[in-house]
Amino acid sequence: MSMQTLLFLTGLVALSSSYTIPLSSRVHEVYGNGEDDNPLLNLGAEEDLVEGDMLILPGRNALIDTKYRWKFPIPYILSDDLDLNAKGCVHQAFEMYRLKSCIDFKPYEGEKTYIKFEKRGGCFSSVGDQQNGQILSLGDGCDHKAVIEHELLHALGFYHEQSRQDRDDYVKIWLDQVTPGLEHNFNKYDDSFITDQNTPYDYESVMHYRPYSFNVDPNIPTITTNIPEFNNIIGQYLDFSKLDMLRLNRMYNCSSSLTLLDQCAFETVNTCGMIQNRNDDGDWVRTMSQPGSHDHTLIGQCKDAGFFMNFYTDTGRAGDSAFLESRVLHPKRNLQCLQFFYKMTGSSKDKLVVWTRKEDAKGKVLSPTAAGNFIGDDDHSWKIAHVPLTMDSKFRYAFQGIRGDPANSLGGIQVDDITLAETRCPSGTWRIKNFSEYMKSYATGEYIQSPRFYSPEGYAFGIQLLPNSYYDGYIGAFFHLSTGENDQALEWPAGNRQVTITLLDQDSDVRQRQSFSYSFTTSPTHLIPDSNILYWDNPSKMGTYDPSCDCYHGWTWGWNAYFSHYHLNSRSYLKNDDLILFVEFEDLTPLIKSEVPIKSPVHLRSQD
Amino acid sequence: MSMQTLLFLTGLVALSSSYTIPLSSRVHEVYGNGEDDNPLLNLGAEEDLVEGDMLILPGRNALIDTKYRWKFPIPYILSDDLDLNAKGCVHQAFEMYRLKSCIDFKPYEGEKTYIKFEKRGGCFSSVGDQQNGQILSLGDGCDHKAVIEHELLHALGFYHEQSRQDRDDYVKIWLDQVTPGLEHNFNKYDDSFITDQNTPYDYESVMHYRPYSFNVDPNIPTITTNIPEFNNIIGQYLDFSKLDMLRLNRMYNCSSSLTLLDQCAFETVNTCGMIQNRNDDGDWVRTMSQPGSHDHTLIGQCKDAGFFMNFYTDTGRAGDSAFLESRVLHPKRNLQCLQFFYKMTGSSKDKLVVWTRKEDAKGKVLSPTAAGNFIGDDDHSWKIAHVPLTMDSKFRYAFQGIRGDPANSLGGIQVDDITLAETRCPSGTWRIKNFSEYMKSYATGEYIQSPRFYSPEGYAFGIQLLPNSYYDGYIGAFFHLSTGENDQALEWPAGNRQVTITLLDQDSDVRQRQSFSYSFTTSPTHLIPDSNILYWDNPSKMGTYDPSCDCYHGWTWGWNAYFSHYHLNSRSYLKNDDLILFVEFEDLTPLIKSEVPIKSPVHLRSQD
Repeated sequence: MSMQTLLFLTGLVALSSSYTIPLSSRVHEVYGNGEDDNPLLNLGAEEDLVEGDMLILPGRNALIDTKYRWKFPIPYILSDDLDLNAKGCVHQAFEMYRLKSCIDFKPYEGEKTYIKFEKRGGCFSSVGDQQNGQILSLGDGCDHKAVIEHELLHALGFYHEQSRQDRDDYVKIWLDQVTPGLEHNFNKYDDSFITDQNTPYDYESVMHYRPYSFNVDPNIPTITTNIPEFNNIIGQYLDFSKLDMLRLNRMYNCSSSLTLLDQCAFETVNTCGMIQNRNDDGDWVRTMSQPGSHDHTLIGQCKDAGFFMNFYTDTGRAGDSAFLESRVLHPKRNLQCLQFFYKMTGSSKDKLVVWTRKEDAKGKVLSPTAAGNFIGDDDHSWKIAHVPLTMDSKFRYAFQGIRGDPANSLGGIQVDDITLAETRCPSGTWRIKNFSEYMKSYATGEYIQSPRFYSPEGYAFGIQLLPNSYYDGYIGAFFHLSTGENDQALEWPAGNRQVTITLLDQDSDVRQRQSFSYSFTTSPTHLIPDSNILYWDNPSKMGTYDPSCDCYHGWTWGWNAYFSHYHLNSRSYLKNDDLILFVEFEDLTPLIKSEVPIKSPVHLRSQD
Repeated sequence: MSMQTLLFLTGLVALSSSYTIPLSSRVHEVYGNGEDDNPLLNLGAEEDLVEGDMLILPGRNALIDTKYRWKFPIPYILSDDLDLNAKGCVHQAFEMYRLKSCIDFKPYEGEKTYIKFEKRGGCFSSVGDQQNGQILSLGDGCDHKAVIEHELLHALGFYHEQSRQDRDDYVKIWLDQVTPGLEHNFNKYDDSFITDQNTPYDYESVMHYRPYSFNVDPNIPTITTNIPEFNNIIGQYLDFSKLDMLRLNRMYNCSSSLTLLDQCAFETVNTCGMIQNRNDDGDWVRTMSQPGSHDHTLIGQCKDAGFFMNFYTDTGRAGDSAFLESRVLHPKRNLQCLQFFYKMTGSSKDKLVVWTRKEDAKGKVLSPTAAGNFIGDDDHSWKIAHVPLTMDSKFRYAFQGIRGDPANSLGGIQVDDITLAETRCPSGTWRIKNFSEYMKSYATGEYIQSPRFYSPEGYAFGIQLLPNSYYDGYIGAFFHLSTGENDQALEWPAGNRQVTITLLDQDSDVRQRQSFSYSFTTSPTHLIPDSNILYWDNPSKMGTYDPSCDCYHGWTWGWNAYFSHYHLNSRSYLKNDDLILFVEFEDLTPLIKSEVPIKSPVHLRSQD
């Protein structure tokens, strides 16, 4: 992977020099990102672009005209020339579409219409289905989940948010601050040409420009918002907004998600169809928040409301158990992740077991399997848990609470905010409690070390989080390999693996979450500066010893400007003052040769 | 209208004798309804029915099989033999579908497939589009919005809720208590035949049987619920449940409503796209709930949250004004109703004016019109308001707050929970404050008299509400005509008019409301008992003088068991301890001759 790629990875054109910070007493190369960048900027790009990242093609009146709407699944090709990291990010974006809409994608197999992802000069796309194969360019700096979500929304038929005819009611465009010759990027479109799908102007749209887009003076914005709070929001590159998805789902008549199987916050009496087993020793009790025992869904939002499920362990006998079972679910993939929040307030001998049970056509139970185990602790606070499942036919999942030691329990086992999606569970999940305290007390550059995680292949790794990074107003996040149990069986260096660090938006409704992900992909030839040592080689060769894991940590790589303090205080990123990070280390080797031949040539029409 | 019709109107088969209560010192004939009835019961009905109200037709595997799905709009015929009141209720049900889904209906014009509403023995329907014209029967007792919603859900492809394969996880069916020979009404269907659209079992579905359905002993239920709270809920005939609509919208890929134009509870910073006018004297301020000044959306649910818009009138100068303008809206009908909640806490000279402004294609403002006026009062509590609009092209609406007397104001003008739907505004809106106090203090049969309302034709009318009616545990609601300003120009008796009394579910989201409506239609030949006086003649002839309106009230007609106290305490029927009723008095004369000839005969196939 070239230096330049990582530079653009952060989307920050302005910060064009790498800088070096001491971390763990060694030298690391890191790159910052910022809020004042514009990844859509395509100055000098080879294509003829309007609005920075949209290609003008003949017959471009795409939006209202339904002939530019896609049929699903949309065939795609990942061109070989794409950065490997971009290829991984395309799949991340696909998964977000599948989770939040009914839009699906499939590898190209000779269809007339398709999207070919190529690396050209910038990030750009045609608007709508051009019906003869079309290019979506992911140039340097476009290898980012939210950028690809944005370009795919163009491909699906959406223009930029500030192109709406009514935009002047919401933002002020300072045309005198726009680089001469680029004013057309702020065109408005008539509402006979594009429709707002009867939704209001959306400052939070992933289709909105940033304040400094196409500016002359780096300190003077070209866009300001009439509601001042949104000056810090427009151009967000976190994830789809609620209205982005409402519009997309209206345009394509999506009424359900492809991969969301079940979700429950226990706010309604029917507990989302979850049932009590009648043949066990007790029941789970739907319990309302009270002082000192708040639910997870509404914590921080409403003191008088919110429910969770509770199995009391301070009564009955040791060994008593109660099952809370899901309704019957019909999977489409054979890969699921059950995510939930739980709290153990009873004895340290209490247990929570997650079961799965397939059912045949007649409802007969087949092969009950214990898929996850959780034990009592002294933490007594809400923790996140993930249980990977591989159900390929009709099934239920269930929570079994087991009383460990009623005489020494003053509480029970609590569960809330369940999400069951047909996606992979994260390899590493790291919850940092009382995070605002770290932000107050940690010096610039001081970091928190994560536990050691393992990837599906067996690589050990960790992250270091800087509550106050060297980029002012940001937290930093850095990845490193660690020595681990499987090192002798693994390939070294660990190249062509994609690192993704995700900051979880803890909204109870997964469809409303705007979780943030940044990714980079390891290069097998990357060298540690001024040395012959490969960056991603076995950390036993050059790592630093950490007594907490009795292991060595390799060199770190990541983002000084991972996430801004401003955004961290919005939405549910710091719910309950917990910061939750997911970390992936995924083998992208199968994507290196990804291009399939096109059966009829792509016509990228010029403007003649 | 026959007595029998009114009897069945209430859906209560058991209460087959009319009874007489003294009300306003006169004798009135009233009929109760109850929760233990079963309007779906069709014993002795002429058709061959399964599950009480579903017709078996060949190839009945309607649900998963998409060939039984309708195209929209669905052509319909109202047979001449239908009760006039049923015809009016069919249109009420259509309007609920249009508000909460994308399902639309149109008068039959020779199409191959259609629904013909006929009066046969009971309420029943085929399941799914039979593709050759089909009967939906509305017999005696079926003339009720929610019953017709239910039958239309059958026609659209839905079975009863307790037919789900997993129903035994949620309800217990007591087959030994079912009338012998009718056990097939409790059949379950395999999930390869019907799909749950990935939604949980719904005790609140309008498709669920009541506890005493098909029972032998009137005091012993045939269905009990595993979650005991729902024994009082199953078989609700209020309106669609949230899950009813989720399933319908999933089956038909509905992603938006046909008639809901705009809705705002001001819970998000973007205020749903509403904007401040920049050329006026002040701004509306998005204000968070605080003790003593709570928003309307979350009142009673969450003390720490909820926002409303506020224009302070205790500052500035008299005559200062501020506009809060909607985004641009595109109407489909030329009939809208703007509903909102407002509160005036400033001086009695403060004013709130609702404006509409059309815009041309270029956004130029045309014909601003003041559509509604509200003035300050000493009430200082949330009130509901309706402003009828007739917009036929692109427009905005706006709230103008006007400061009346800043020196004598300690507050301002507040607005919350706006709903703009393309429906008619109610003729009469009656808010009863502190309703739970009336329930505590009023004797059985004692009533509250509404103000005098006027129908679109000009008839004056009112209602009398019994907080504790003669039917134990219920409120009663009775309609009467009054003398009014237009009486000399009106037709007497006022026959063939439909009275509808609606109890508003005050949820801020109109799509989630389960407002309850009961209707009857006046007969021009109906006589006051033991007299030759027509029941719906001019009240000046036989009415009782009421000094509060300086007018005469005619005889009352209505429901002793209008709504149960149990249900009144659920959902948002008593939000803020306000009971809100809407009353209609609508001319159904145009529906008397409603049948259009069928171009190909209806084949109602038998089971051979």
